Amino acid sequence: MKKAGVAVVGYGNIGRCAMESLEHAPDMECVGVVRRSGSAEGISGLSAYRVVTDIGELEGVDVALLCVPSRMVRGTALKCLSRGINTVDCFDIHADVVALRAELAAVAKASGAVGVMAAGWDPGSDSVVRTLFKALAPGGVTYTNFGPGRSMGHTVAARAVKGVKDALSITMPLGNGVHGRLVNVELEDGAVFAEVEEAIKSDPYFASDRTEVREVECVAALNTLEHGVNMVRDGISGCTAGQKFQFDMKINNPALTAQVMVAAARASLLREPGCYTLIEIPPLDLLPGNREALIGELV
Amino acid sequence: MKKAGVAVVGYGNIGRCAMESLEHAPDMECVGVVRRSGSAEGISGLSAYRVVTDIGELEGVDVALLCVPSRMVRGTALKCLSRGINTVDCFDIHADVVALRAELAAVAKASGAVGVMAAGWDPGSDSVVRTLFKALAPGGVTYTNFGPGRSMGHTVAARAVKGVKDALSITMPLGNGVHGRLVNVELEDGAVFAEVEEAIKSDPYFASDRTEVREVECVAALNTLEHGVNMVRDGISGCTAGQKFQFDMKINNPALTAQVMVAAARASLLREPGCYTLIEIPPLDLLPGNREALIGELV
Repeated sequence: MKKAGVAVVGYGNIGRCAMESLEHAPDMECVGVVRRSGSAEGISGLSAYRVVTDIGELEGVDVALLCVPSRMVRGTALKCLSRGINTVDCFDIHADVVALRAELAAVAKASGAVGVMAAGWDPGSDSVVRTLFKALAPGGVTYTNFGPGRSMGHTVAARAVKGVKDALSITMPLGNGVHGRLVNVELEDGAVFAEVEEAIKSDPYFASDRTEVREVECVAALNTLEHGVNMVRDGISGCTAGQKFQFDMKINNPALTAQVMVAAARASLLREPGCYTLIEIPPLDLLPGNREALIGELV
Repeated sequence: MKKAGVAVVGYGNIGRCAMESLEHAPDMECVGVVRRSGSAEGISGLSAYRVVTDIGELEGVDVALLCVPSRMVRGTALKCLSRGINTVDCFDIHADVVALRAELAAVAKASGAVGVMAAGWDPGSDSVVRTLFKALAPGGVTYTNFGPGRSMGHTVAARAVKGVKDALSITMPLGNGVHGRLVNVELEDGAVFAEVEEAIKSDPYFASDRTEVREVECVAALNTLEHGVNMVRDGISGCTAGQKFQFDMKINNPALTAQVMVAAARASLLREPGCYTLIEIPPLDLLPGNREALIGELV
C-alpha cells in the first residue's frame, strides 16, 4: 500500500513532535518540511528530509500539517487548500472556530481538498469527549478544567507582545471550568513592565480569564511541556439524574497535539471535500490498519 | 421539522428508559411499542402509546430500538432491516460483534436501511473512548475495568439457565482489566445448585472470567441498577512515553444504555445504508440541534 505523503509546515515544538509521530505511522511518510528559513541548519534529525520555504516546492504532498501559531493558520490553510492539498491544523481560538471552518470549507470544496481544523487536544480530542458526554447525558453541564500546565497558544500570544523577550503562560485550574493564567515574562531592554502587563491582559487570549503577569529573570529556567485536563459532567440520561462522567489526562502537550494532528491527517483522506472539526469525524478513521480487526479489538 | 418515528421493541428496564429518553428528545417521537404480549397491561406510562406484537402493525417507523436481550438481537434486527427500518441495538457479546455487523450490513444495504449495533455503553460509548485513547497514544495498553455493578447482559444470561428462578450478576473489577463475576441465584423448586453453578460457569458469557455463583433466598432484595467503568491508558504519542489518560463513570445502567441507543437512532438517519458500530459514527451526529451551534459550543 502506498503511504500518504505528509508535509510538516513549521518546525517548532509541535512540528518536531509531528515528525516523530509520522516516523511511527505505518501508513504515512514525511515528504518534506516547510520553514521560513528553508534550511535544516542547527536542527538535528532533519537532515534526511527536504526543507523548503514554500510548500509548492515539495512533491507528493497529500496532507499538510500546519504546525504554526493559530494566527497563521488561516493564511497557511487557504494557500494549501486552494492548491488541492488537505490540511490539518491545531487552531485553538475557540470563539473563531465556526467562522474559520466555514471559510476553509468553501475553498476546500472548490478545489476538492479536505481541511481538518482545531485538531489538537483542546479544541480537538477534548471536544470529542465533550460531545460524547453530552450525548450520554443530554441534561447537565460539562466543566473543562485545564492544567496546571503550559499553554502553548497563550505562550505564543504573550511572546508576540511588544517588549516581551520570552514568555511562559501557565494555566491554573480554579475549579468548575474557571481558569487563571500565570504569565511569566522576560522583558526586552528598555521595556516597561506595566505596559507589557496591560497589553497581555487586554489580549483576546487572556481578556476573559483571571490573568496575573509576573516578571522573571529567565523564562527558559521555568520551562515545561507538561499539561493536563480534568473534564467532569454530572448529567441526566432520560429522567435519570446523577450520571457521573470524568475524563482526566496528564500529557506532554506538543507530543499529544502532534499525535492528534497525524491521526486527523489520516482521517482527512477518507472525507468528502470540505472542512471538518474532530467531532465530525468517525473515531475509527483516526487509526491505521484493518477496520474490521480494529472493530474486533476496540468495540 | 418532522420528528423521526421510533418504535421501542421490548419493554424491560432498557425499553422503559428508552421511552423516557425519547420523551426528552426534541427531534424524535415514539410511534409504538412492540411486546410479546401486545398489551400495555400492568405497565404505567404506556397507555398513551400503541402496543403491538409485531412491528409491521406500526406506521411511520423510521428507527426501531431493539431493547431485547443480546441473543434476540440478530433475529429482530434482520426482520426490521429487511423491511427497510433502521435498527439500533445494544448487543453486548464483544466476540460476536464483527460477524453480526457483516451479516446485518448485507441485509441493510439490500433494503436501503441502516443498522447501528453494539450501541450501549460497553460495547458502545466506551468503545469510542478506547478508540480515542489509541489515536491519542498509539503505543500502550488500555485497561477497561468494569463495576462493581450489575451486568444486565450477564444477569439475563444467568436467568436463562435451567433451574434459575431469578439471578443478579455483579461485575467485580480486579484491576488491569481483569474481572470477577459474582452471580447471585435464586433457584426454582427442585433445582440442584451444583448443576446450575456448572451451567453458569461454562456459559460463554462467564467462561473467561473468574465466576463465583452464590445461592440466595431472594434476588429482588439485592437489586441495583448502578454500574460504572474506569478505563486507563498509559501510552506513547510519537516518541513521548508517559501520556496518561483516564475515563471514569458511575451511572444507572439501563438509563445510560437507552440514552446511547436514542442518540444512535438519530445518527442512523444520517448514514448511508449499512451497519455501523459507534466508532464508525461522527460524535456530532449523536446530538440534536443546529450543527454549527453545537460546533461553537463543544469544539
